[in-house]
Amino acid sequence: MKPTREILADILEEVRPLIGQGKVADYIPALAKVPNTKLGIAVFTNQGEVIKAGDADEGFSIQSISKALGLTLAMSLYKPEEIWARVGKEPSGQAFNSMIQLEMEQGIPRNPFINAGAIVVADLLHSRLSAPRHRLLEFVRQLSGEDHIVYDKVVAASEMMHSDRNAAIAYLMRSFGNFENDVIPVLANYFHACALKMNCVDLAKTFSYLANKGVSVQTGKQIITPMQTKQLNALLATCGLYDGAGEFAYRVGMPGKSGVGGGIIAIVPGEMSIAVWSPELDASGNSLAGTKALELLSERIGRSIF
Amino acid sequence: MKPTREILADILEEVRPLIGQGKVADYIPALAKVPNTKLGIAVFTNQGEVIKAGDADEGFSIQSISKALGLTLAMSLYKPEEIWARVGKEPSGQAFNSMIQLEMEQGIPRNPFINAGAIVVADLLHSRLSAPRHRLLEFVRQLSGEDHIVYDKVVAASEMMHSDRNAAIAYLMRSFGNFENDVIPVLANYFHACALKMNCVDLAKTFSYLANKGVSVQTGKQIITPMQTKQLNALLATCGLYDGAGEFAYRVGMPGKSGVGGGIIAIVPGEMSIAVWSPELDASGNSLAGTKALELLSERIGRSIF
Amino acid sequence: MKPTREILADILEEVRPLIGQGKVADYIPALAKVPNTKLGIAVFTNQGEVIKAGDADEGFSIQSISKALGLTLAMSLYKPEEIWARVGKEPSGQAFNSMIQLEMEQGIPRNPFINAGAIVVADLLHSRLSAPRHRLLEFVRQLSGEDHIVYDKVVAASEMMHSDRNAAIAYLMRSFGNFENDVIPVLANYFHACALKMNCVDLAKTFSYLANKGVSVQTGKQIITPMQTKQLNALLATCGLYDGAGEFAYRVGMPGKSGVGGGIIAIVPGEMSIAVWSPELDASGNSLAGTKALELLSERIGRSIF
Amino acid sequence: MKPTREILADILEEVRPLIGQGKVADYIPALAKVPNTKLGIAVFTNQGEVIKAGDADEGFSIQSISKALGLTLAMSLYKPEEIWARVGKEPSGQAFNSMIQLEMEQGIPRNPFINAGAIVVADLLHSRLSAPRHRLLEFVRQLSGEDHIVYDKVVAASEMMHSDRNAAIAYLMRSFGNFENDVIPVLANYFHACALKMNCVDLAKTFSYLANKGVSVQTGKQIITPMQTKQLNALLATCGLYDGAGEFAYRVGMPGKSGVGGGIIAIVPGEMSIAVWSPELDASGNSLAGTKALELLSERIGRSIF
Repeated sequence: MKPTREILADILEEVRPLIGQGKVADYIPALAKVPNTKLGIAVFTNQGEVIKAGDADEGFSIQSISKALGLTLAMSLYKPEEIWARVGKEPSGQAFNSMIQLEMEQGIPRNPFINAGAIVVADLLHSRLSAPRHRLLEFVRQLSGEDHIVYDKVVAASEMMHSDRNAAIAYLMRSFGNFENDVIPVLANYFHACALKMNCVDLAKTFSYLANKGVSVQTGKQIITPMQTKQLNALLATCGLYDGAGEFAYRVGMPGKSGVGGGIIAIVPGEMSIAVWSPELDASGNSLAGTKALELLSERIGRSIF
Repeated sequence: MKPTREILADILEEVRPLIGQGKVADYIPALAKVPNTKLGIAVFTNQGEVIKAGDADEGFSIQSISKALGLTLAMSLYKPEEIWARVGKEPSGQAFNSMIQLEMEQGIPRNPFINAGAIVVADLLHSRLSAPRHRLLEFVRQLSGEDHIVYDKVVAASEMMHSDRNAAIAYLMRSFGNFENDVIPVLANYFHACALKMNCVDLAKTFSYLANKGVSVQTGKQIITPMQTKQLNALLATCGLYDGAGEFAYRVGMPGKSGVGGGIIAIVPGEMSIAVWSPELDASGNSLAGTKALELLSERIGRSIF
Repeated sequence: MKPTREILADILEEVRPLIGQGKVADYIPALAKVPNTKLGIAVFTNQGEVIKAGDADEGFSIQSISKALGLTLAMSLYKPEEIWARVGKEPSGQAFNSMIQLEMEQGIPRNPFINAGAIVVADLLHSRLSAPRHRLLEFVRQLSGEDHIVYDKVVAASEMMHSDRNAAIAYLMRSFGNFENDVIPVLANYFHACALKMNCVDLAKTFSYLANKGVSVQTGKQIITPMQTKQLNALLATCGLYDGAGEFAYRVGMPGKSGVGGGIIAIVPGEMSIAVWSPELDASGNSLAGTKALELLSERIGRSIF
Repeated sequence: MKPTREILADILEEVRPLIGQGKVADYIPALAKVPNTKLGIAVFTNQGEVIKAGDADEGFSIQSISKALGLTLAMSLYKPEEIWARVGKEPSGQAFNSMIQLEMEQGIPRNPFINAGAIVVADLLHSRLSAPRHRLLEFVRQLSGEDHIVYDKVVAASEMMHSDRNAAIAYLMRSFGNFENDVIPVLANYFHACALKMNCVDLAKTFSYLANKGVSVQTGKQIITPMQTKQLNALLATCGLYDGAGEFAYRVGMPGKSGVGGGIIAIVPGEMSIAVWSPELDASGNSLAGTKALELLSERIGRSIF
């Protein structure tokens, strides 16, 4: 069955009672004050159709969803072996910002979607791009076709004020020789990427290349190769949902990436990209109602990768 | 493209040079003496066609591939919440037999495909079946349609002689209240399951239900529900290859389960089940040439879940 | 200043208000039912004088204090290198029954006073003595001069019923090749040692050799050499109080060994051996009032090793 | 027996063959180039007598020995509870610069002699002293009576160039709220303390207060109280030798503190302070020949705390 506006609206109503059972991220004030009642979903089909419901046009902080964008850029700039010598491809089995595993594995992060891994990717971008922060914004604007997308400066500044743990992660990797640049400017770029403000429609459009063998449905451009697209989807499926990747695969069955802003993107290869938003998080740090909405969508339209 | 006998034979020749670069499992003599040159592959399509090449008809010890069978049986006997209260659904991020994580997580194994998880599943089967060892053999014979399948008694006895670590795992879980029966008989059943002797064709036929929404292509019987099939494939995709699940997803892109006997089964949902065998293992304990063969097959026939 | 009956009695009154702030060990019923109000202390000087106060003549389960006895016996039977190849000499920095460290360090326990280490010592005794359980009892009776000392069979049986974690520890060490005998009989001896029922006077007399260069004050016999006595006191000082050894050294400043039955023995080398008993434990598993009593005694008589 | 110049000289000859079996610290060039043949020892008695042999008057980098000085200063500035709320008193059971334990224990270092603990102490000094670096130098000059003592600027600068791991440690503690000041200036002071250049005689004199109930034998001043002296010696005995504290207690039996420059100070309470120097280190990072020299000295003069 095809997703329709009605199906999406029904699903939102069905998951709305979950609001109140999760917890809005509160480690920075800018996130803590987002109303917990926001709820939106957007689907972007490989035919270029947008289907949406709820607060799908309201921008929010994409947070860790940006890790998939950073990796996409890095995959377009580096040879695979240059990337995978510095970051692994395996699920972490630990909280997303754990330093224990990072020390045990000698400064090589387990995968590019835990903080350590995304910071290595930011370091890679910093080494090869003259203005990585500008380039990422340009990249997202092109992919989504939306020039309104900006960095939320308040969020970025607030992240920087609470950067001690990420600084510890970066310095630890540097002590193992797995960090090339100065820590502070790389973290500043990393936090800006997290502070991208986008809505569900922007996100669904932006990630259309993952559903379309690497070709952006929005622009028609080949962003990464079909092989790289398969690889990136595989990484998202095994590592994209922090320490809840197995549960997400079990319930939703789509490659995906979540952020503590309450957004999740998910991919049905060959068919569509999806974005949901609900700010309250479950114990693994993934949107509670957002995950449920994707689970219901998978059931209603009979789509998953399994 | 459809898999053909020629494609399979070509792939085997292409991966054969990898033999000599891995390491045959040698923790028990019965495995150590298997010739490292064995190499076979079999595909069983949802239309009931068998395509095969190499040593596809020669039996070997399926070892941890049996964990997927044990879980299937348990899913048919227990309610989901009864199973998932005792074992998790997340990748482990640790070696397959680590006790560190098991202690940190209070005796709840991370997933049903690490040793601890499979031992819990064996404990579940022991609690509900009057003759679990007999039942499992019967189950495999029905699924494959092959009455020749037996437990390799030498392998089972040899495993039992080297059972100290698994006994430690079982006793640790019991100390946390997550083990119901006596340790020794449960381990004996677990080791027998590992000691099932099957060939690639047997295995491909046996797991056809995972490619066919829970219905065995061989027997036409519904083994588990379509929803359970999706769930089991999701678990295999995120946790089925020990600490190499991410790499396997990245390169092969199919739900799968490996064993230290050198076998791997892999699933293309809706289309086919596949089994490969090559005894030499990589650093993660997965068949080296077998993984490469599946990677090449995925490329040649243009199939993966991503 | 010399310890006197009055000093000891005053100290007991001073620490008595702590009763109610700790927690009696309750993992086995036989320990849980000991009245929390019991409080006793005994000093045995190198001149053979007994000074005591409170419930110093009432027997209790010595539990892990027996680890020091087992090690003393092993030191008299084995060459140092035979012992220290199988168990370390370093503080553990972990809970007394943690398996994490044991796995990380390849089955070699950190020291002989954590459970794993004491179980290795029990395995050593089992390999060399024809009747280790009988020999240990005989040894304690000689050292204390008290034939009334017995194994508390109820406690020993109850420990055996709750032995899963210790069985897990033993099997893990066996999987690393650091265990020579069958697990169950060694554990049975280990639990019997823990179940020795002794009072404060018995204990102070028994350990007099540690205050007297290896010569039992009670019997006049050389139990271990002066060098071994120094070594054993060093191990007690750094590892004898579980994960509270540093705090105990800081506050009390004497080599010591505690048990979850609420007993602690402490040594002033060259002068006296001391035993206290109060069943309630602190967060590290050491007697709360007992530790405080030793701290006060150290202050009053101006004695410590520092 | 009293230590004499002959005894010390004999001991040095006896341990000299160990040179070549250890490894000079080489993580910074300034340490790597120190000749491995250097060997010196000095004893400072509570009567004010200096006894010495070998290279006892040649300065070297005291490195972690400075951690005992920093803690002494902090103990004179803060109430006990202010210090021990931020750093523990227990042996670490881990390598001296491990972040694993630090994360597990929520940013509270196990003790003040691992790097994390000493950095917390440096943070404490930074918060309360207007010129902590100047104050520490003045403190050491007074205690030793030697105005020639200086910071080795080359060593300090070199440490700062290799500070990534210590920066990671500091940032991790800050992320847990256990760090009050800017990371860089605190680390600069910490590295300067490590870069103090002193000889064996300086060190033996400096630490005389630990052998003399808190009163400096050199100056006659009360540096810390008798109780604090007992406490500090206890901490040195259980935590002063990295992950070799148990072995050191077993063999030497004196409170002590080592540095990767090859120096060790050791205390015989009530009698003398001792300093040895030999640059080659054992696997735990403690001077190989230096430890052996202290072990022999303990035997020859019949002194230890046990």
